[in-house]
Amino acid sequence: MQSKTISSAVIRRLPRYYRYLGELLENGIVRISSRELSIRMKVTASQIRQDLNNFGGFGQQGYGYNVEYLYQEIGKILGLDKKQTMIIIGAGNLGQALANYDFEMIGFSVIGIFDANPRLEGLAVRGIEIRNVDEMEAFVKSCHVDVATLTVPKKNARELAAKLDEWGVRAIWNFAPIDLIVSDEVCVKNVHLNESLMTLSYEYRNKHAAAEPEE
Amino acid sequence: MQSKTISSAVIRRLPRYYRYLGELLENGIVRISSRELSIRMKVTASQIRQDLNNFGGFGQQGYGYNVEYLYQEIGKILGLDKKQTMIIIGAGNLGQALANYDFEMIGFSVIGIFDANPRLEGLAVRGIEIRNVDEMEAFVKSCHVDVATLTVPKKNARELAAKLDEWGVRAIWNFAPIDLIVSDEVCVKNVHLNESLMTLSYEYRNKHAAAEPEE
Repeated sequence: MQSKTISSAVIRRLPRYYRYLGELLENGIVRISSRELSIRMKVTASQIRQDLNNFGGFGQQGYGYNVEYLYQEIGKILGLDKKQTMIIIGAGNLGQALANYDFEMIGFSVIGIFDANPRLEGLAVRGIEIRNVDEMEAFVKSCHVDVATLTVPKKNARELAAKLDEWGVRAIWNFAPIDLIVSDEVCVKNVHLNESLMTLSYEYRNKHAAAEPEE
Repeated sequence: MQSKTISSAVIRRLPRYYRYLGELLENGIVRISSRELSIRMKVTASQIRQDLNNFGGFGQQGYGYNVEYLYQEIGKILGLDKKQTMIIIGAGNLGQALANYDFEMIGFSVIGIFDANPRLEGLAVRGIEIRNVDEMEAFVKSCHVDVATLTVPKKNARELAAKLDEWGVRAIWNFAPIDLIVSDEVCVKNVHLNESLMTLSYEYRNKHAAAEPEE
């Protein structure tokens, strides 16, 4: 692990580099210049060079970047080179959608799905049985869980997060529309869908409000 | 509409203010100081004052903020004071989850769901019939669509986005793991789930990798 602190802006851009490099690989492209990459990604070549310099470069003057090498290295930085396990808590529509999502391609396996609704118990999503939340503590303590994905109503999210924290889960991917309260040991990443839609609404209304007919 | 340009960092924080103010309202709290709000939101009081000053303030020395007024005003800034319409393209797991999501509370009504799979045709999600994508052009041209939500495979996303653009849709909420290519008229907001999970993975592995047993 590099000891240097990398700005969160750079970290936020890394997955996008990873995605583009993955596409280049799929298309059989073995090397690319920062200039070519910058045209595809619509960022400046100097930003690309600066970002990748945070990790010691990888580029070579006059040759450009070796696509597969860079893809692998960014994958390692993001921790994707190692298999990771995930449980999903909340087997409603969103939880089931996530259980069906192809996270395997970035190294994540869903190993458990939990719900409080007894009517869902025993059903399976993609071959994984939905268990009662009562079984979660024993499960988490016996199987190594890297990430817990929370797709529960906001009224239950904080209590569940506190339990996961207590049981030793160290990463929570939170879809509940509430800020969790957990110890400093726990990494939390929120996906607040309503908030994403609101920022789209802001941009859209500011751009197009004037053009619309009055009501 | 204010003519002043507001930084995207402020805009990104507005939905969170809106959420907290909504919760205060639900709990019957009628006014709050920037200091109290800052404790709840875990940001500095000065950041709150600065952010809200972008919109002319709203606060009053010694009184604090009127919660309902501020909630309404931020809602207006975000364009949530007006009913907006949404269609969802892609009625797979994620599309269906979104169709069942409660976007009504921020003013969005789902008025159409489309899919290319003829087996889904005629089925309904939350009372809204799933239509064939072939019917989409006529639908978009006869009903006013504010936002099109794309939950289709990445191989279809760009072509669909280009069509929506051509038909006059001006906001796309994109869940496909690809950058869309549309005209400057179209506002796009991406929700790239894989990339969100990757940034969580980065933080988690950097924080906890050292503590783990060697393999």
